[in-house]
Amino acid sequence: MELVSENKVAGGWHRRYRHRSQHTHCDMTFAIFLPEQANSDQPVPVLYWLSGLTCTDENFMQKAGAFKRANELGIAIVAPDTSPRGHDVADDPDESYDFGLGAGFYVNATQPPYDKHYQMYSYVSEELPALIEQHFPVSTKRAIAGHSMGGHGALVVGLKNPTRYHSISAFSPIANPIDCPWGKKAFTGYLGEDQALWQAYDACHLLRNSQDDLRVPIRVDQGEADQFLAEQLKPEALAKAAQASDYPLALTMHPGYDHSYFFISSFIDAHLDFHAQHIK
Amino acid sequence: MELVSENKVAGGWHRRYRHRSQHTHCDMTFAIFLPEQANSDQPVPVLYWLSGLTCTDENFMQKAGAFKRANELGIAIVAPDTSPRGHDVADDPDESYDFGLGAGFYVNATQPPYDKHYQMYSYVSEELPALIEQHFPVSTKRAIAGHSMGGHGALVVGLKNPTRYHSISAFSPIANPIDCPWGKKAFTGYLGEDQALWQAYDACHLLRNSQDDLRVPIRVDQGEADQFLAEQLKPEALAKAAQASDYPLALTMHPGYDHSYFFISSFIDAHLDFHAQHIK
Repeated sequence: MELVSENKVAGGWHRRYRHRSQHTHCDMTFAIFLPEQANSDQPVPVLYWLSGLTCTDENFMQKAGAFKRANELGIAIVAPDTSPRGHDVADDPDESYDFGLGAGFYVNATQPPYDKHYQMYSYVSEELPALIEQHFPVSTKRAIAGHSMGGHGALVVGLKNPTRYHSISAFSPIANPIDCPWGKKAFTGYLGEDQALWQAYDACHLLRNSQDDLRVPIRVDQGEADQFLAEQLKPEALAKAAQASDYPLALTMHPGYDHSYFFISSFIDAHLDFHAQHIK
Repeated sequence: MELVSENKVAGGWHRRYRHRSQHTHCDMTFAIFLPEQANSDQPVPVLYWLSGLTCTDENFMQKAGAFKRANELGIAIVAPDTSPRGHDVADDPDESYDFGLGAGFYVNATQPPYDKHYQMYSYVSEELPALIEQHFPVSTKRAIAGHSMGGHGALVVGLKNPTRYHSISAFSPIANPIDCPWGKKAFTGYLGEDQALWQAYDACHLLRNSQDDLRVPIRVDQGEADQFLAEQLKPEALAKAAQASDYPLALTMHPGYDHSYFFISSFIDAHLDFHAQHIK
């Protein structure tokens, strides 16, 4: 594991690392924020943040404004990249923004040529937490959050691993990917034409089929002025699934807010406070 | 004046506008944050933010994390671009990052071909405030702040106009440009070889020659791990000038912090609180 850069921020440290991934078979870069109280005698809980389409590990760390509250709460934040990277990693032949590089959708691809490297589900849910817990002064108290495609990722990773994550939150998630253009395109490309197989990565399906005794609390925030709301995000489908199965979902709609990091930065402290209730 | 984009953030609004400048003779883009309490019955004071080399109006607005506190305090923030822009605006023939486009240094250039468009001093100190006060629900209570090249700009604009600004602050400013490589290169290119003329834009010179009865309080914060500290920034020269002339300068050095927006985001709330004491 190679240190790429480090910056002191809000009393703690922001560091970027590069490492060889066993699952994605390429070098992966991630960023970690360590609050000042993190040390081997006092391991801190970790919030994993999954970013949206086109992002890397850098967007959240530069734009979310999360460090001051994370340092006060004593929570580490880990932000992986959103896809495998490298000149030998297959990209969308059309070089679109919503498939291929920067658009891994946090699934394990089964379709060539994507199946070799696009194993982002295993990377973020297994390999990365194990690496973080081996190398940094953190506990095994984990939470997961994300934005847009990363909101989908956070919901799916959290719902599929209810014993490993204590809380889940999402900003503007792609809540029902099997029923929106972004999701259908990605799942067709990574998982193939059989739509029955897509359900394993659909938050609405997972939520409806969650075990009663293993329910991780979920917070979702959505801007009403989000340009992608009606066609791509569909939080109402998630709310309906939660209501039907009596799942603890707190969905809040925010008039005026859009899909950008301006929205995330406005409510990230509230998300950190939510997770702190469950991982502290 | 044309609205380019708008985003709700932290209860207020971030908006970008494009307008034709009388001084730079080109289209200029600026950003404004308006706190939610800004309206024509309750005009709010304005903090002008000047950014550093390579920046536009966007860097501060996306990375500083200033909106929550600015909204609480009821302070508007205006961020201009750092140079004139356009295909007919002369750039450095070498296309370097520290001269020409993105590196206007907040001076009025006298040397061709830069004198036509590079009139950033007049733009930020006269034209922009007049435009802002004409079109937005703001008062004439003004403060000015900036980073690096923009820290130099804030110090110079504030010190040269002590009746127009109530407080000045800077992160990691180029404090003594007539005595560092960045400043010497820029001033030679924009102002010519006569170094006596450079002093009109040197914070140390202006501070030493400020009138006793017109002293605007200054706050400066500087990271000790800043890679540009010794060669380019020279806060010790500013401290020496302040001490010699008994000027109210509060300079704080911060161990571990570097030149990045991670440093700015760590202390921007303290700067906003400092300005609020003087413009509220």
